[in-house]
Amino acid sequence: MREIMLKFRANIEAMEPYVPGEQPAAGTKVIKLNTNENPYPPSPKVGAAICAEVGDDGDRLRLYSDPKALALRQAAADVNGFPIEQVLHGNGSDELLAMLFRAFVDEGQTVAYPYPTYVLYETLAHAQAAKIATYDFDREFNLPKTLFGCGAKIVFIASPNSPSGTTYTSQQLRELAGSLKDGLLVIDEAYAQFAGANNLQLAKELENVVVLRTFSKSHSLAGMRLGLLFSSARIVEGLWKVKDSYNLDRLAIVAGAASLRDVEWTAANAQKVIATRERLGKSLAALGFDVVPSQANFIFARLKSAEKAAGAYRFLKGKGILVRYFPARLLDDGLRISVGTDAEIDALLAALKEYFARG
Amino acid sequence: MREIMLKFRANIEAMEPYVPGEQPAAGTKVIKLNTNENPYPPSPKVGAAICAEVGDDGDRLRLYSDPKALALRQAAADVNGFPIEQVLHGNGSDELLAMLFRAFVDEGQTVAYPYPTYVLYETLAHAQAAKIATYDFDREFNLPKTLFGCGAKIVFIASPNSPSGTTYTSQQLRELAGSLKDGLLVIDEAYAQFAGANNLQLAKELENVVVLRTFSKSHSLAGMRLGLLFSSARIVEGLWKVKDSYNLDRLAIVAGAASLRDVEWTAANAQKVIATRERLGKSLAALGFDVVPSQANFIFARLKSAEKAAGAYRFLKGKGILVRYFPARLLDDGLRISVGTDAEIDALLAALKEYFARG
Repeated sequence: MREIMLKFRANIEAMEPYVPGEQPAAGTKVIKLNTNENPYPPSPKVGAAICAEVGDDGDRLRLYSDPKALALRQAAADVNGFPIEQVLHGNGSDELLAMLFRAFVDEGQTVAYPYPTYVLYETLAHAQAAKIATYDFDREFNLPKTLFGCGAKIVFIASPNSPSGTTYTSQQLRELAGSLKDGLLVIDEAYAQFAGANNLQLAKELENVVVLRTFSKSHSLAGMRLGLLFSSARIVEGLWKVKDSYNLDRLAIVAGAASLRDVEWTAANAQKVIATRERLGKSLAALGFDVVPSQANFIFARLKSAEKAAGAYRFLKGKGILVRYFPARLLDDGLRISVGTDAEIDALLAALKEYFARG
Repeated sequence: MREIMLKFRANIEAMEPYVPGEQPAAGTKVIKLNTNENPYPPSPKVGAAICAEVGDDGDRLRLYSDPKALALRQAAADVNGFPIEQVLHGNGSDELLAMLFRAFVDEGQTVAYPYPTYVLYETLAHAQAAKIATYDFDREFNLPKTLFGCGAKIVFIASPNSPSGTTYTSQQLRELAGSLKDGLLVIDEAYAQFAGANNLQLAKELENVVVLRTFSKSHSLAGMRLGLLFSSARIVEGLWKVKDSYNLDRLAIVAGAASLRDVEWTAANAQKVIATRERLGKSLAALGFDVVPSQANFIFARLKSAEKAAGAYRFLKGKGILVRYFPARLLDDGLRISVGTDAEIDALLAALKEYFARG
């Protein structure tokens, strides 16, 4: 092959790709507690809606999907009491995050977020050639005071935060949004349906607030790539310009709409997850972990040292149990454990007991 | 709601959103010849693959899709005789186009393409704050000589081109790629499977060539949002950095893989479309249209004036027949008509006869 002088953008050459959590090959027998998926299946109405859309011969798949995803957005508007003009749909909330960068952040402008949090904010900032300002959480993951009035174009706050599971109150976030004179506050509520409260109301109250939701956790639909954005009508209107026209396929649209309207199913699964999370937290504490109180579908729990935590991760992996270990500053002494079924959590706890018994 | 001073990027404020072709509401009885969808259903193996993935209770949809889309890329590699490292998957080829902008084009850099062509190149350039250089086609849609050595970071050539249906030879495109010393040639082959030849081989031969394919036309899967990119391993490797990790959902991956492997089905449908296209071209010429010879699944045909063409568009719409009319320079005297079933084309031709009979 003839080589030429073609170069990627400098920011792209320099950046590392985002590394998602391990996905074992199909058929591998593992207990998967590493990527915060829901252990329970989606609403039966999801499969029914997909099969109805496919029909006898898949003929409808010939035709483009609805660029406005009206069926999905109307369901989201109805269920959450929002005007449809304030709702936008994404190919996962990851795509919505990328759209926010493209719409608001010029090369060299600054975005800010606490550390540690969802790693994708950093990846997307590099892809957009943005500058990054991070503000360390304390050990209890309280919102860093230095974020207020920090002057960034966008501030990202995950609430519940990952990997800590900690939440931030509407009062705190309202103040933070108010301190950003010409900046946007993005509240990433991927895990909000496992928490006692959420901040959706702020997206009605303040023009510079965006709230993101995903179907990957509480709706048991990580495999369908669905996310929602709630914000002021002015922000949603501008975001349409950077959206891929047909960003959701036909099956994702009907799956998402069916799942949203089956409120009871999702709530019942969330309740089961919350009950298991509480039991897991107590059990980990009894085993000697320093457990961060979580409002999400996972728990971050620390051991005495990075060595001890990395050892636990490897020991569990050897037993066919995947949890998430982050070999990074402020995180390398802990494990992030997704809340699985009760049986999965029993297996995890038994394996951890074995690990500690071996010293 | 409290208003704040938040501003979109200047390029976003200034740009117009991409306007896709009209999509009539579900249940509306129209003959849809406006967005180049395939009139025949996808392979029966597509629906079967989707139902198998959904299973009894949709339980697999809980889990993230494969970020590498191995099943799909392996099928694409096998069918096209490419190493898998030279194949990348997109949420439609539209997403792959957007990724190319993000990976290669800094703010203020120039991209180039002939005019008229696929309108999305312009939309994506505005979203990336890129400069645009366009080079007018002549009336026969020959490749403009001024594109050669134009110095753009990316040159986009659709072959077959839309809305003309005209193709460009590998010899022409090889020369064009060679004339771009540090630039990329993107050959958008959305319609290649309706043409007598294609340029896939150039993506093996030259490091700065990208070939794009979509499932929206020849695979009858516009509703599933699937595209493929073929290029040198170095370019594909860099593009992974700007790809959303989980850009395809589980059902799109299995649908695409099943469709690719059913080579006979796709080829048989393409043959039917080609036969109808040839008949449509002759019939339009007999009605007095100036027909551009097409290698795609649509035909661009001119009338004596913009007024006459716009009148035909409106008349057809009144009859429930949607075709595409572009009220734009060099295009406003023509109609772009997608090749439908023979019955749909008969209805179109009858309506056009009626339009001309009325003067």
